[in-house]
Amino acid sequence: MSRTMKAVVKTRPEPGAEWREVPVPIPRPDWVLVRVRATSVCGTDVHIFGWNRWAESRIGRDRLPQILGHEVAGEVVETGAQCSRISVGDYISAETHIYHPGDLQAMLGQRHIGERMKIVGVDHDGCFAEYFAVPESVCWVNDPAIPPELATVQEPMGNACYALLGEDCDVTGKTVAIFGDGPTALFATGIARAAGLTSIFVIGASPYALEIARRMGADHTLSISDTTVDRVQFVRDHTGGYGADIVLDMVGAPQAIKEGLEIIRKGGRFSAFGVSGSASVPIDYNNGIVFKGIQIHGISGRRIFDTWYRVRNLLASGRVDIRPIVTHLLPLDRFAEGFDIAMGNPRQCGKVVLFPDAAELSDARRRMGMV
Amino acid sequence: MSRTMKAVVKTRPEPGAEWREVPVPIPRPDWVLVRVRATSVCGTDVHIFGWNRWAESRIGRDRLPQILGHEVAGEVVETGAQCSRISVGDYISAETHIYHPGDLQAMLGQRHIGERMKIVGVDHDGCFAEYFAVPESVCWVNDPAIPPELATVQEPMGNACYALLGEDCDVTGKTVAIFGDGPTALFATGIARAAGLTSIFVIGASPYALEIARRMGADHTLSISDTTVDRVQFVRDHTGGYGADIVLDMVGAPQAIKEGLEIIRKGGRFSAFGVSGSASVPIDYNNGIVFKGIQIHGISGRRIFDTWYRVRNLLASGRVDIRPIVTHLLPLDRFAEGFDIAMGNPRQCGKVVLFPDAAELSDARRRMGMV
Amino acid sequence: MSRTMKAVVKTRPEPGAEWREVPVPIPRPDWVLVRVRATSVCGTDVHIFGWNRWAESRIGRDRLPQILGHEVAGEVVETGAQCSRISVGDYISAETHIYHPGDLQAMLGQRHIGERMKIVGVDHDGCFAEYFAVPESVCWVNDPAIPPELATVQEPMGNACYALLGEDCDVTGKTVAIFGDGPTALFATGIARAAGLTSIFVIGASPYALEIARRMGADHTLSISDTTVDRVQFVRDHTGGYGADIVLDMVGAPQAIKEGLEIIRKGGRFSAFGVSGSASVPIDYNNGIVFKGIQIHGISGRRIFDTWYRVRNLLASGRVDIRPIVTHLLPLDRFAEGFDIAMGNPRQCGKVVLFPDAAELSDARRRMGMV
Amino acid sequence: MSRTMKAVVKTRPEPGAEWREVPVPIPRPDWVLVRVRATSVCGTDVHIFGWNRWAESRIGRDRLPQILGHEVAGEVVETGAQCSRISVGDYISAETHIYHPGDLQAMLGQRHIGERMKIVGVDHDGCFAEYFAVPESVCWVNDPAIPPELATVQEPMGNACYALLGEDCDVTGKTVAIFGDGPTALFATGIARAAGLTSIFVIGASPYALEIARRMGADHTLSISDTTVDRVQFVRDHTGGYGADIVLDMVGAPQAIKEGLEIIRKGGRFSAFGVSGSASVPIDYNNGIVFKGIQIHGISGRRIFDTWYRVRNLLASGRVDIRPIVTHLLPLDRFAEGFDIAMGNPRQCGKVVLFPDAAELSDARRRMGMV
Repeated sequence: MSRTMKAVVKTRPEPGAEWREVPVPIPRPDWVLVRVRATSVCGTDVHIFGWNRWAESRIGRDRLPQILGHEVAGEVVETGAQCSRISVGDYISAETHIYHPGDLQAMLGQRHIGERMKIVGVDHDGCFAEYFAVPESVCWVNDPAIPPELATVQEPMGNACYALLGEDCDVTGKTVAIFGDGPTALFATGIARAAGLTSIFVIGASPYALEIARRMGADHTLSISDTTVDRVQFVRDHTGGYGADIVLDMVGAPQAIKEGLEIIRKGGRFSAFGVSGSASVPIDYNNGIVFKGIQIHGISGRRIFDTWYRVRNLLASGRVDIRPIVTHLLPLDRFAEGFDIAMGNPRQCGKVVLFPDAAELSDARRRMGMV
Repeated sequence: MSRTMKAVVKTRPEPGAEWREVPVPIPRPDWVLVRVRATSVCGTDVHIFGWNRWAESRIGRDRLPQILGHEVAGEVVETGAQCSRISVGDYISAETHIYHPGDLQAMLGQRHIGERMKIVGVDHDGCFAEYFAVPESVCWVNDPAIPPELATVQEPMGNACYALLGEDCDVTGKTVAIFGDGPTALFATGIARAAGLTSIFVIGASPYALEIARRMGADHTLSISDTTVDRVQFVRDHTGGYGADIVLDMVGAPQAIKEGLEIIRKGGRFSAFGVSGSASVPIDYNNGIVFKGIQIHGISGRRIFDTWYRVRNLLASGRVDIRPIVTHLLPLDRFAEGFDIAMGNPRQCGKVVLFPDAAELSDARRRMGMV
Repeated sequence: MSRTMKAVVKTRPEPGAEWREVPVPIPRPDWVLVRVRATSVCGTDVHIFGWNRWAESRIGRDRLPQILGHEVAGEVVETGAQCSRISVGDYISAETHIYHPGDLQAMLGQRHIGERMKIVGVDHDGCFAEYFAVPESVCWVNDPAIPPELATVQEPMGNACYALLGEDCDVTGKTVAIFGDGPTALFATGIARAAGLTSIFVIGASPYALEIARRMGADHTLSISDTTVDRVQFVRDHTGGYGADIVLDMVGAPQAIKEGLEIIRKGGRFSAFGVSGSASVPIDYNNGIVFKGIQIHGISGRRIFDTWYRVRNLLASGRVDIRPIVTHLLPLDRFAEGFDIAMGNPRQCGKVVLFPDAAELSDARRRMGMV
Repeated sequence: MSRTMKAVVKTRPEPGAEWREVPVPIPRPDWVLVRVRATSVCGTDVHIFGWNRWAESRIGRDRLPQILGHEVAGEVVETGAQCSRISVGDYISAETHIYHPGDLQAMLGQRHIGERMKIVGVDHDGCFAEYFAVPESVCWVNDPAIPPELATVQEPMGNACYALLGEDCDVTGKTVAIFGDGPTALFATGIARAAGLTSIFVIGASPYALEIARRMGADHTLSISDTTVDRVQFVRDHTGGYGADIVLDMVGAPQAIKEGLEIIRKGGRFSAFGVSGSASVPIDYNNGIVFKGIQIHGISGRRIFDTWYRVRNLLASGRVDIRPIVTHLLPLDRFAEGFDIAMGNPRQCGKVVLFPDAAELSDARRRMGMV
């Protein structure tokens, strides 16, 4: 194996990234080295690529250069000396929240929110590269029935799964309103359909994305630019006057949160997944939370490996077909084009998947009927 | 309104029932009178019709004559003076477990298993008649999108819903093995498919019923007469070697319970819904329950009205299409034929629905494409 | 029985109330008439007595005159014709949220937050009187081991129970921080101690009330007027650096909510019970809820009758001794003095209990060792 | 450090064990070496010491010689090269179920029941020795407030905690019947008292142990040798006629299971922890499980590390004082005497704690007031 590789590297504290030749990482004793078959663009990557205030404060310029990316499907090509669970040749994806086993949360079964947790592609080098190294502890062996272009998005699909199921997993035969039309909201729509949610409302901005939402099973899509519709009233009218049993905030904007707390029925469950642009969101504590008797579940990452198990099963069984969401397949060296697509406004994409290897890309295109 | 009506009456403590002219019931102040549009045959009715040992001890000969039946869809034609929630003209079905509000269980949210609970068609007159009276407290207003031939089976579909969801409702993305091929098992299969269970195994005896199971979404049907298949091994082979996350016993036979405890994975959930023919079932307590760390949930009736809400939503939204299960539509006066069909061995039916009114029957047949 | 009685009546839309001779209420067919043995002052009564903006908008001047009060223990002296569960002579208290059985929430087991729910003493006459009428459906038969001066406060103790247990009831061996020092916070402290919470922090303003908190089992009381203590740091220092597993907001003030979201550990549960004085509370949505992966449970009223069952058991068994909280016993005609005590600032009381009958009062005083 | 140590070694497939000089174990890279400060005798050790059929089949003669024991408190004196969480000098106890991180159960948060799990003292050398080696992954850092003679029994106290809390942790204000009077049942009694269970029934055989149960907080102790008491009726009489909300089987005998299923109220929860002497237990499936609508939770081991967290908190806070249960302190070389005590019939002990070091023993005796 060559000891250098090509990778998408954040080199300077400013927008952009470089396609560089860098050393292939050497896995630590309890890490594995993975040949990347497919990787995909997440909003976090967009923030780092664009080097916004969050990136500056969370990553910091001192850590650069650093390789971007954290969603992946690949093949293990080397294992550290202490590895026992994962073998060379395994077809894997990876949980990107590298939990610390000594965190109280990790000890209590909440590995995804430990205090000392590290994140792939944020706290160290990521997977927008030909190879990447990752702790064995977060590897997930993929079902061979799931091709790389779909396996790579299991991580954000796990976010969607967790947000939809919440902490109680009580969704079947209930109604849901999903705020947002990014890929995670679209995955949530597909899972909601597969999980027997019986009225699925998706509230979004992009006609392109809302069309995908309909293909994923949304019963009603509502555009925030359509001022003729009173969305709160619309949802009530379609839920016997009560409002939605479950609301997913996948936007984080104060207006979405406010509307979500109006759309949810008394006694419902609200999944707080969106990240707000402001440090403080005004909330109607009395009428929105207390008197309404709702539950709010903060959703950060995804239950490890609970969501991986479910997502794997949903994909491998064909219960959810996410192909309408995987809209763009590109070679990894055209990452800049991928970021342009992902940052488009209005959104003209679902998920953008990148391939270091041309043959993998062409296989994927064929499977997706994109040739 | 005429003050007499035709009804299927158990008159003597022996097999059979009579088609008789009887008085239309007069509802008590907190009861309503319902014109029966459709009613359906349950295993309990079969036991009473056949007057087996259970019927003799549970009902007793002193209570006869008594009208059979408890699954129903109809129109309210009269309300008692104290009724407030239900109005004349409402299109309803009814929970058949008439809970006593003072039972501790009812006070704690477990209305379906109260100590003083009464059962329609068992503890008093049922609905195999042109009219029947029922407490307002157990009425459920139907969605108009659900026609009577389907609305009448919401009650057993509620059993199936409760058995599948158990007390935790955690099913999405998991695997399930269903023992049984009676109508409730078939409903459970359909709900399992709608709820995102990703490997659905149905173990039954009747080729006819297993074919319905496949139409309802079973991934694998296993016949107990096929001695070439090791069912425990088969399920393990299709669940990564672990066994099913969830097992539903809808048979009650010792062999099914034994096999279910072998098929369930460690840490799984077993819904005990089947009724055993014997007073005592031998169970491998250590290896089947303790060391395996499973949960067993006793399922009696269905959560009131939680399951009604879900079943209504699943049917009205079209998420579950139960028409393959509703195999026989007959006029009520041909009830004896209905019982013959329901008691057939091997089973050659799903659910048998009966209609007091010829016009309702012919509408239903048309809707079901049976003309 | 005399057909008139003395009662505390809100007669005019202004502060105050009158001690008036009024007709004894005649119970409706499904209501019962109760001879009041003890009643107690709640914050809601204080709002109505003072006729603040909430009272003006929630009750409205058109409904006056109206009798105050909703916490009660008494003896049933008459039952309506339709009553079956409660009998004359029963020693009862009453759930004050009169649920409507047709509300979706009530049908799904969330009776306390139905859309059409009515509240005793708010939506109709209350129990600051010699007699009061209440629906049989909300009556709770008291354990005879619980004397009236304690039985009357089971209703707010139920709030405390619900707030502490939340929707998951998972508290044993965990840590809790309680914001507030009103009676409900003090009840929560006592229940927390009885339920095996292992570090109990109470944050309050009144030295008098914090002393009661200590007697109820608080491990640490923190005064908000003590500016030398960093409360967030203090709680972290006493919880291994993580923060409290559970936080109860029983204040509603933005500062308490903010501090609560800082004090709670990642993955903890926050019970939102306090009512905010402002329509909008600024909340750090990202760092307080989403990234922290917490749950917020809106607590309105109490689970009916789940909390009554638990509170009854806790009191009757002696597991919780609430006598330190019941600080003032007065004859009912000295209600104005009771309100003065309850409205004192800084708080110099726990719970104020009122007695229409002098003999009951003197018995209670003797039992409480107040003579 | 000397490279040999004294240990209690099972050398031959027959009753008994030897006090031998053996090499100090050398920890693997991800293991630690612990100086044993206190260790305690569990029923499993008794089975191995007595070399019954279970021991013969589970361990097998080929693995001998093997050191006994798995309950421990000690000080880490050496860490393998790959250890990061635990340091030399840490005062620890250890989870004895060494989970395999790749088991599905472990990945889903059920580490205690993984397929490939190993058990300390069963699958490899245990801690009845001056030193023992254990994987870092199962170490639990003790609270320094808990002395070794109590810290060593946290492991079985975790069993008791898990059995009492079950999978739902909903216990406060409820009633419980505990079958058994061994140490785990006694721990469960103490935790039940601390957790706010309001009627605690303990059903046992040994007057000595039942006296400890009373000291731990049992409200009612019932001796199985007292034939004048109908225990089912007794519990119903003390629970409003309903039966206990929760039943713990800590015996495993068919009679206890049968009685437990009679004593539990409809809709209650039954923790199956006892291990039956027979391969098959006759169970009244219909009336005991299905119609009663109960839940049975199989309890094997304890949730890792959820129960450790709770037990640590309960002990360190003083909420549970387990000193009445820790009845015997002995030097480790008098292990044979310890086994005699533990195997006494009728039981004349609670927990037997052993000390490799005389000074530790004498300190412990002083703390326990046994000098």
